[in-house]
Amino acid sequence: MSRERLYLFDTTLRDGQQTAGVDFALEEKLIIARELGAMGMDYIEGGFPGASTTDTAFFAEERDFGKARVTAFGMTKRAGRSASNDPGLQTVLAAKSDAFCFVGKSWDYHVEVALGVTLDENLAAIRDTIKAAVSTGRETMIDCEHFFDGYKANPDYALSCAKAAFEEGARWIVLCDTNGGTLPHEVFAIVSEVKKHIPGERLGIHAHDDAGCAVANSLAAVSAGVRQIQGTLNGLGERCGNANLISLIPTLKLKPEFADKFEIGISDDGLKNLTHISRQLDEMLNRNPNRHAPYVGANAFVTKAGIHASAILKDPRTYEHIPPEAVGNRRRVMVSDQGGRSSLLAELERIGLQVNKDDPRIARLLDTVRERENAGYAYDGAEASFELLARRALGSVPDYFDVDSFRTSVERRHNAMGELVTVCEAVVKVTVKGEARMSVAEGNGPVNALDVALRKDLGIYQPFINDLKLTDFKVRILNGGTEAVTRVTIESADDSGDVWTTVGVSPNIIDASFQALVDSITYKLVKSGAPAP
Amino acid sequence: MSRERLYLFDTTLRDGQQTAGVDFALEEKLIIARELGAMGMDYIEGGFPGASTTDTAFFAEERDFGKARVTAFGMTKRAGRSASNDPGLQTVLAAKSDAFCFVGKSWDYHVEVALGVTLDENLAAIRDTIKAAVSTGRETMIDCEHFFDGYKANPDYALSCAKAAFEEGARWIVLCDTNGGTLPHEVFAIVSEVKKHIPGERLGIHAHDDAGCAVANSLAAVSAGVRQIQGTLNGLGERCGNANLISLIPTLKLKPEFADKFEIGISDDGLKNLTHISRQLDEMLNRNPNRHAPYVGANAFVTKAGIHASAILKDPRTYEHIPPEAVGNRRRVMVSDQGGRSSLLAELERIGLQVNKDDPRIARLLDTVRERENAGYAYDGAEASFELLARRALGSVPDYFDVDSFRTSVERRHNAMGELVTVCEAVVKVTVKGEARMSVAEGNGPVNALDVALRKDLGIYQPFINDLKLTDFKVRILNGGTEAVTRVTIESADDSGDVWTTVGVSPNIIDASFQALVDSITYKLVKSGAPAP
Repeated sequence: MSRERLYLFDTTLRDGQQTAGVDFALEEKLIIARELGAMGMDYIEGGFPGASTTDTAFFAEERDFGKARVTAFGMTKRAGRSASNDPGLQTVLAAKSDAFCFVGKSWDYHVEVALGVTLDENLAAIRDTIKAAVSTGRETMIDCEHFFDGYKANPDYALSCAKAAFEEGARWIVLCDTNGGTLPHEVFAIVSEVKKHIPGERLGIHAHDDAGCAVANSLAAVSAGVRQIQGTLNGLGERCGNANLISLIPTLKLKPEFADKFEIGISDDGLKNLTHISRQLDEMLNRNPNRHAPYVGANAFVTKAGIHASAILKDPRTYEHIPPEAVGNRRRVMVSDQGGRSSLLAELERIGLQVNKDDPRIARLLDTVRERENAGYAYDGAEASFELLARRALGSVPDYFDVDSFRTSVERRHNAMGELVTVCEAVVKVTVKGEARMSVAEGNGPVNALDVALRKDLGIYQPFINDLKLTDFKVRILNGGTEAVTRVTIESADDSGDVWTTVGVSPNIIDASFQALVDSITYKLVKSGAPAP
Repeated sequence: MSRERLYLFDTTLRDGQQTAGVDFALEEKLIIARELGAMGMDYIEGGFPGASTTDTAFFAEERDFGKARVTAFGMTKRAGRSASNDPGLQTVLAAKSDAFCFVGKSWDYHVEVALGVTLDENLAAIRDTIKAAVSTGRETMIDCEHFFDGYKANPDYALSCAKAAFEEGARWIVLCDTNGGTLPHEVFAIVSEVKKHIPGERLGIHAHDDAGCAVANSLAAVSAGVRQIQGTLNGLGERCGNANLISLIPTLKLKPEFADKFEIGISDDGLKNLTHISRQLDEMLNRNPNRHAPYVGANAFVTKAGIHASAILKDPRTYEHIPPEAVGNRRRVMVSDQGGRSSLLAELERIGLQVNKDDPRIARLLDTVRERENAGYAYDGAEASFELLARRALGSVPDYFDVDSFRTSVERRHNAMGELVTVCEAVVKVTVKGEARMSVAEGNGPVNALDVALRKDLGIYQPFINDLKLTDFKVRILNGGTEAVTRVTIESADDSGDVWTTVGVSPNIIDASFQALVDSITYKLVKSGAPAP
């Protein structure tokens, strides 16, 4: 059975850079492009040559991006001058790219209001630009900006823009929902109309998520006939972002409705690497990954409800639409009040703890979990603390170190120069293998100072924790008022890319934080196979 | 032109509670239900009576939820016992609800594997449960669990489950995509088939976002004929979450493709309140709001690109699919913020500060707000700090007191009895009316100790702050990593019933907390009309 080829076009480095707060360095662009190439992306839009030094430099670099065609973005030439006389266009054509993608307007209103030129001048700009690019011998495509809004306002004009590019030899005519407000059934209907004029294998879709439908719009366009999808990793992009390729790729590769009909360039290994790529990008941008992201989110295969959990144990397909391993993610059954015994057993199995399910320690562990959850602990969001609790109940966590005491102080005062400064210090005393050790450190705040002091000298355990770092810190006040209890959740990571979460609870925020810090270090020691003292 | 009525069913308090890490307190459930009622929600699913004390208690509370029908969730009766002999079912039927929603299985595989009963026993359980609920005279509906997967595996059986509930008098037969992996065109096709057996005005849709299509699936189901949509605020829910009502409501109210055909219960004011409701829920859950969320995200109407920005200035419709004000959001153009000024003026008017709109202090205040928001302050959720900033810009806040210095320490050590204790102390030096005062206090934690010390002796201002109390304290880490900045938000209240929120930002959590504490006291002094020193 032969499947049709569907092409993927990544614009993380160009349209993704329009995200508020995102500004890739050259080195970051290269890292992302290499990942995209390795997974089998068809097109990588690297930037707009001439628009910034980074964008220009990207095209001058040596490439190692697999079979991906590196694409330079540009604007159609300005009205009133010829293509050869438009320096912006010439800079794009001079870039060392494999392909070009030009944005051209196709909404009459926009041409007249935003651009301030006549409809005919805009058509001529599209024709001349595509002609000039095609004459270089390189693959050329057009992003028809605001195509769907334009089609709804003036279908003849929108179509004439698309056809102009097609007639001049553009390989791809990409229909853009620039404002992101078009809905799937409209995309389907409009693409179906366009297909009467331009063959589907020459059409592409470029969707934005302003109505929460960018992924569905891309799928609707494919169902209607387009054969190229433009999008970004993690749905980066201006406003609500572009179509999220991280959500689209597994659907296209794993769902029979698409996988049976279409072939895409992404390899099985590329698919398995998707969770990693998604989180690596967040890491680069210093963002918290969306735990609820389709396919790759930390919670995407987490089950909380008790009945669901017991069904998952019988057969994961009962509550999983795809196997999490296929996208490099993993299953988690949560232990919580609602989950009960079966979730607990499932979680122990996942952690790799072999226990007979009638073992009396199971009931005791369940009691402990419930007691602690009543006291304010939340193991739902703190798998590492749960794992330690479970391993301790089963007797497999060594007492690597004992904390004898700690103290921390924060002082705000005027310094010798008369400036207001805040000074923060912590002292921690620990015993490792019978030997007392005392460390002192300064920090940005008391928790940071304690963290630094605690990890400064753990004797023989130091090599195991060198690459540990705190990546997030959350505080929640429970109960409120005078009975208030503080829950601190700490997220940690290490160089292997592992991320884990620990929790501490106390009326005192510093105490709660310290518990979570100690759990994080202990977890890291367990996972690294550190020896008992 | 008469439009068909489309009903919205919110399950934030039930299915939304399946979100990992989410566990609503009774008071939180009531706050959310009041907001839902005020916006015009048709159904509010409050929980599963009998499943937890909070869920049970919710139904016993006095209600003030507008026209919303409070719905109790339950499971169909167990096989092998009669409805009247099933204590779980009887607990649900005994709850003081306006309506019931029972979950019943409709996938043959699930009935046999997860439930371990025969297909006929499951059908009988559906019939008997619906019959028992309908006989109470209250509106009854069924959530057909895994309907779409079930239909794909065994359409006859899935349909027979839906028809059984319909025949027994269920008002709504809700088709659930429980695993969330169904795609919009499949939803459309399957709903179209079901409609041949059950009228569309009796059908509902319950979608999950595992393929990133929950919103589109809900819309596809409506296009195919269903007349009830189930979803949650902010798309809370297990794994990747449920269909996000915050994204669906504006589409249904504002997009002609739906708004011309359907009427929903949400009022225009409810729509304008959507941004607030979305952020309030995140605040309650101590989550960072998704800046890129459709319609309500802080970035949903932010324009970065220079050309886009200049077009937006000419006419916002050029790059906006709806006017941001309609959903209570606002436009932000990163180069030259025109929206900022008008919302600032509106806010000053709300506070009751009379200013000429050409007053040069307005522009300076706007600059300050922007600068501070860039640094991490969030005035959206801290009106009292904003009001102080505005009043200071206009010169109307006295310097009641000066803080010369503070220090706080936390120490954990073994006491004389050999017990581990944590001791926490703070010292604050202030100058009031030229007179230096120094106070020391102990507390549950460093912030509590600082708060007590700071309020211990403010001289002539003491009588004004006697009834001030801290009611909530929230911490959020911004940026993360080494650039991390801490934002502390403090909620205070006094005996008059007033509640206000202040904010502090610093790399040091203690500094940030102290700023927010000082703002809270200052705000209280302003509002109490305390005299200048």
